[in-house]
Amino acid sequence: MENLLNGIEEVLLMGPGPSAVSDEVYAALSRKTLGHLDPYFIKIMDAIKVQLQTVLETENVLTMPLSGTGSAGMEAVFVNLIEPGDAVLILKNGVFGLRMAEVANRLGAAVEVLEFEWGTPVLVEAVKEQLAGKTYKLVAVVHAETSTGVCNPVAEIGALLKGSATLYLVDAVTSLGGMEVAMDKWGIDALYSGSQKCLSCPPGLAPVSFSQRAVETILGRRRKVPNWYLDMSLIAGYWEGKSRAYHHTAPINMLYGLYQALFLLLQEGPAAVYRRHREMHELLVSGLEKMGLEMLVDASCRLPMLNAVKIPTGVDDAAVRRRLLHDYKIEIGAGLGPLAGQIWRLGLMGHTARSENVERLLAALQEIL
Amino acid sequence: MENLLNGIEEVLLMGPGPSAVSDEVYAALSRKTLGHLDPYFIKIMDAIKVQLQTVLETENVLTMPLSGTGSAGMEAVFVNLIEPGDAVLILKNGVFGLRMAEVANRLGAAVEVLEFEWGTPVLVEAVKEQLAGKTYKLVAVVHAETSTGVCNPVAEIGALLKGSATLYLVDAVTSLGGMEVAMDKWGIDALYSGSQKCLSCPPGLAPVSFSQRAVETILGRRRKVPNWYLDMSLIAGYWEGKSRAYHHTAPINMLYGLYQALFLLLQEGPAAVYRRHREMHELLVSGLEKMGLEMLVDASCRLPMLNAVKIPTGVDDAAVRRRLLHDYKIEIGAGLGPLAGQIWRLGLMGHTARSENVERLLAALQEIL
Repeated sequence: MENLLNGIEEVLLMGPGPSAVSDEVYAALSRKTLGHLDPYFIKIMDAIKVQLQTVLETENVLTMPLSGTGSAGMEAVFVNLIEPGDAVLILKNGVFGLRMAEVANRLGAAVEVLEFEWGTPVLVEAVKEQLAGKTYKLVAVVHAETSTGVCNPVAEIGALLKGSATLYLVDAVTSLGGMEVAMDKWGIDALYSGSQKCLSCPPGLAPVSFSQRAVETILGRRRKVPNWYLDMSLIAGYWEGKSRAYHHTAPINMLYGLYQALFLLLQEGPAAVYRRHREMHELLVSGLEKMGLEMLVDASCRLPMLNAVKIPTGVDDAAVRRRLLHDYKIEIGAGLGPLAGQIWRLGLMGHTARSENVERLLAALQEIL
Repeated sequence: MENLLNGIEEVLLMGPGPSAVSDEVYAALSRKTLGHLDPYFIKIMDAIKVQLQTVLETENVLTMPLSGTGSAGMEAVFVNLIEPGDAVLILKNGVFGLRMAEVANRLGAAVEVLEFEWGTPVLVEAVKEQLAGKTYKLVAVVHAETSTGVCNPVAEIGALLKGSATLYLVDAVTSLGGMEVAMDKWGIDALYSGSQKCLSCPPGLAPVSFSQRAVETILGRRRKVPNWYLDMSLIAGYWEGKSRAYHHTAPINMLYGLYQALFLLLQEGPAAVYRRHREMHELLVSGLEKMGLEMLVDASCRLPMLNAVKIPTGVDDAAVRRRLLHDYKIEIGAGLGPLAGQIWRLGLMGHTARSENVERLLAALQEIL
């Protein structure tokens, strides 16, 4: 029998995630599997909680990685906080805001969507106006909109909500590990992320964190969380306290990988890591502009880790991506939804955000275009 | 900073899962991460589907591993097939039957539970009687009840349901890879499993399979699946067909591990693997009985891969397990629920089911007891 794994060739991952994985994280993935109730494994779980609290700048006790990808994190925050009929406001300017609305709708929430043009940020004034007219149980926004490369003003929206009873939910899938995410300072009540973006671990885990207010909301529910697998009150029984109650079997080796990825991030220092992302972004943008390429997003609200560049007229989108992959072993991302065929999405996430990678991509694009 | 991963010591996993992982699977986990839409990765996905179809003895098109642990598989089959008010019969004789009832209840099903004593199997005659009195949309049973070591008569229950409109759902978390699971022959409509039992891959993936009838049930739903993350109609759009639509980012490296685990199973041959499980089980039981220990379950319905042995009177349950772990680096499982303190659960799953492991455990128990 032919083993397909032997045919895997290394690809430089410069799309919207997964991102490049370091040798240390690969090695961590293949450490010996321990039992999910082994005291030494529980020590590692406790350490991961502290690592996440540090990177999220939060003191939230209910902070841990869930056993699913970033989308499971989205599902988890909504299904735990929302009950049928709850008024929810989604601030939408891309695919992931759209997905939030879909998830909340399926859970029976009374969803309202405040829309902004794709490629532009959520406008704080418009949110302020909307909040003046109605009280919501929950307001949700995507920090780093992976589909467009826009950074939304998460801190400013948090300031609008301060002092109100409204819960503030933030998608930090693409931002976490590549730019500051100050959960407590910004007044965020619930947040989810993914392992495969700026944390540079393979996909499979969803860090989440809930404020004390969010925890009280969960404890005060009228009915049980309709999703047993993602019920935070049950998951907390395994991740917290003295007697760890078995809920489901944790993905041990993936958690080793996440531990190592967070270890590397904290060793380099979050501020230095964010600076590296910013510098690599500037290097990339200046190189692209020298080639005559144009960015989709205004410089004032560009993400460092996800760069949306307009595809020049007359250039075959798919053919360029295919050539990059086949001839140069570089993966970049296509546009999604209304931006399909209009942009490429160039990722500079975590371990990918290094100058040799930026230069390799720029050189390849130079040759192809 | 101290890196906790450096302190991991290998433990022989002889509990209820996770099981021992082979070097080949560890190596697979740290193969270079590809993008989730990379054509070569899609080739690997297609191969995993065929591997799973082979091991499940099914032609079901909707067969793939889900991005979560076995419990996510349970959540997925129920949330896709059940709508509020649906009549569901759960056959319960352990923790995992109980969990099924909890999951289905949370989804609003009209759940009835037919109970059997823990440590004894589901009785086919009792099921027949129950089915004579009422029509259910779905009947669910656990094949290998991990909490007790009992094998339930899955084929016989399937025969009762043949020709009816009732869907037949089976939990094959612990059985798959350690004994025959003949999905089509037994008339099973929906099945889920886990990667960390007899497949001997670390935890994190849940193989699932749905019959054509189950697919039609999903397509004919009155309302959308309330769980976006586990909606099979969306997941199928990524795992099937020519144009793979992005749903969520697949857990790439875990899927490498599962591919390798299934590769090894098929290379040895399913029949040989099941025989090995049976033989190791017999070796273990005969060794335990020589020591004067007694099995919980009658020989007629004992599982090969999960052996529940009664704790002798006067023996300190936790102290023995602690000593096995600390002094002998062997993990075994405690009893759950009403069987806590009454039994130990000795796993012989996948790569664990080898004579050197059985002998090592027997020798250690001999010394301690």
